[in-house]
Amino acid sequence: MLAEYLNNVRTKTPLVHNITNYVTVNDCANILLACGASPIMADDIEEVANIIAICHSLNINIGTLNQRTVPAMFRAAKEANTLGRPALLDPVGAGASALRGHTAMELLQQARFAVLRGNVSEIKALAHGVSSARGVDADALDALHEHNIDAAVALARDTARRFRTVTAMTGAIDIISDGERAAIVRNGSHLMNRITGAGCMLSAMTAAYIGADPEHIFEATLTSLCAMSLAAEQAERRMQPMDGNASFRNHLIDAICNMDGETLERGANYELR
Amino acid sequence: MLAEYLNNVRTKTPLVHNITNYVTVNDCANILLACGASPIMADDIEEVANIIAICHSLNINIGTLNQRTVPAMFRAAKEANTLGRPALLDPVGAGASALRGHTAMELLQQARFAVLRGNVSEIKALAHGVSSARGVDADALDALHEHNIDAAVALARDTARRFRTVTAMTGAIDIISDGERAAIVRNGSHLMNRITGAGCMLSAMTAAYIGADPEHIFEATLTSLCAMSLAAEQAERRMQPMDGNASFRNHLIDAICNMDGETLERGANYELR
Amino acid sequence: MLAEYLNNVRTKTPLVHNITNYVTVNDCANILLACGASPIMADDIEEVANIIAICHSLNINIGTLNQRTVPAMFRAAKEANTLGRPALLDPVGAGASALRGHTAMELLQQARFAVLRGNVSEIKALAHGVSSARGVDADALDALHEHNIDAAVALARDTARRFRTVTAMTGAIDIISDGERAAIVRNGSHLMNRITGAGCMLSAMTAAYIGADPEHIFEATLTSLCAMSLAAEQAERRMQPMDGNASFRNHLIDAICNMDGETLERGANYELR
Repeated sequence: MLAEYLNNVRTKTPLVHNITNYVTVNDCANILLACGASPIMADDIEEVANIIAICHSLNINIGTLNQRTVPAMFRAAKEANTLGRPALLDPVGAGASALRGHTAMELLQQARFAVLRGNVSEIKALAHGVSSARGVDADALDALHEHNIDAAVALARDTARRFRTVTAMTGAIDIISDGERAAIVRNGSHLMNRITGAGCMLSAMTAAYIGADPEHIFEATLTSLCAMSLAAEQAERRMQPMDGNASFRNHLIDAICNMDGETLERGANYELR
Repeated sequence: MLAEYLNNVRTKTPLVHNITNYVTVNDCANILLACGASPIMADDIEEVANIIAICHSLNINIGTLNQRTVPAMFRAAKEANTLGRPALLDPVGAGASALRGHTAMELLQQARFAVLRGNVSEIKALAHGVSSARGVDADALDALHEHNIDAAVALARDTARRFRTVTAMTGAIDIISDGERAAIVRNGSHLMNRITGAGCMLSAMTAAYIGADPEHIFEATLTSLCAMSLAAEQAERRMQPMDGNASFRNHLIDAICNMDGETLERGANYELR
Repeated sequence: MLAEYLNNVRTKTPLVHNITNYVTVNDCANILLACGASPIMADDIEEVANIIAICHSLNINIGTLNQRTVPAMFRAAKEANTLGRPALLDPVGAGASALRGHTAMELLQQARFAVLRGNVSEIKALAHGVSSARGVDADALDALHEHNIDAAVALARDTARRFRTVTAMTGAIDIISDGERAAIVRNGSHLMNRITGAGCMLSAMTAAYIGADPEHIFEATLTSLCAMSLAAEQAERRMQPMDGNASFRNHLIDAICNMDGETLERGANYELR
């Protein structure tokens, strides 16, 4: 199954409209090219309707939201809904400021997102209004472990139902739910926490996957998460003694660039619930 | 000839004023340093006149244009004209939205650009008002091949005349024309399409070359295109089995950093028409 | 001493609020993660008070300042003062435009900065109103050498007193002064001038160090400068024949990622005055 969704991205080369933060935008563009998609970044309210019209999907990331780009996010999301283009929301740091929390919540209420992709702290902030003290990274208390995985699956399922979306809640373990089905992905590397943009790249790539397979949002999202987590394992294995996080970032993007369906099927470690 | 223009950049270390997109801006700064120039990025309308006054040339890239930066682009371009600093326009995605097409066209009409650097789809959009459906990448239908090269040279020549500029139309084959002369560059690598910023970096570097040799815009532009395309070949040869587009980007910038006049003269594959 | 301050960053993982330029922001985020800190970038005036409240320190870098972000810089700096969070100012290109010079000077007058980190041209511009003609890089005439080091120490000391700050004036030789004490760091690599972001990364990392040790600003700043300069030496030693500035940037971040207290103590070459 995974190989099919991976190959669809490479075959269809979906064009992805990104309104994303300026911290990791270059990594997002390169991961989109690496996975076989094509990126366009456009955040001015005057052009977002034109841009989404020629794209297959929309990726909204609030990492460096501001008063100029927030209205463009709303316009783009609503236009994506009108045109039937699947949209993804990455609520970066949703618990870190009122502006972020409010914007993410309003976006979820005023538009329909096919996927909501965040870390546990961000999903919790949206689900319960709980604020994190760790900014854009997941709070240590929010780390996903085997012992709290049932609660995490329930959180992902409830969030998916509430916002009529597929929730992709990522961390040491990743959980995906469409409100009924759930999947748990156990691939990954602790080095993902040492680079900026791991989550942003995952969101951008997932937008490409749902753009290539808009009728199979759950499966496409699962495939994207498996591919990224497996690529992280490959990138970690490639590390040499003097390598650090700069090398890991390069290895990770390279691994996505070289990922093929057979390797993904063989390496992916996921469970359906 | 090429060695002379390459060495002029290294000797004069031109300071280049960039108003460019936030996706590839870091790569643009590093390619400018790699080729021997010095970058400054400044896009606020309050300071662009000050900045262009201390610079040798101006690079305007509309990749993430917005209502705040568009007026700064006009101010900077007009000031560059007044001060006699050569300016380059990169009309990223000119066919992808009305805002982009309109802004690029107005810039070309209200200011004089020494160089117009874009892919075939972008140049066509400006020449004929033809829109592309592929966002910021060249449309597959617009790929340059040997069989349509005469038409492409004619397009570059006409565009150069119309906008009183040197057109640098790049793709698998690159074409440069000042309205009279034309040159065709046959270096390059297919991997250039797998990274973001290949075109943006080329535009930034070309701005450095014309800043170092404002009396020889055609030759300086040709040299810059040859250097980038040859660097792409070198970068491709350096690829190892697990390398992907992240490695290619690094190899490309490294290759420009290490490029010397002798290597460029020996490796450049261009034809004058 | 240095090992203690380095380890404090790794143990306390300070959260650093950055209002920084979009050219080098990704490098700043990755260097913060490399040194053991955690980054958050937030520049909208609506959220900066929320963000600084959950952070340990503030890094303001005026590299691509604009009319939207300048008021956010003032708000964030004042709020940091109110909350007792140490703030750092990087006056990028302070001599290059009136907007930059005026903004940096007003920030220093309206708020208290624990550290002022710039190159010699920038510090001179703030101290004497002298403009540089080299944009964001230090003017060649401003290069620090052994023969003018006494004057440079005096400049750093005077600037520290005038702005009630710790001045970190960096170049081939680095000088730190709190107005009384001064330190000179003689580590480093000439390759630092060939990448964009060397200064920006140093400022971001120094913000992490003072966030972890707000009671020892001088010592924490000295440690950060020693660590970065020693990492530059390690990165230079790692260069292979085809490597250029892209590789050097990666090696530099990797070296910070792998830096430990023992290596730093052994390799740091500094003198107290």
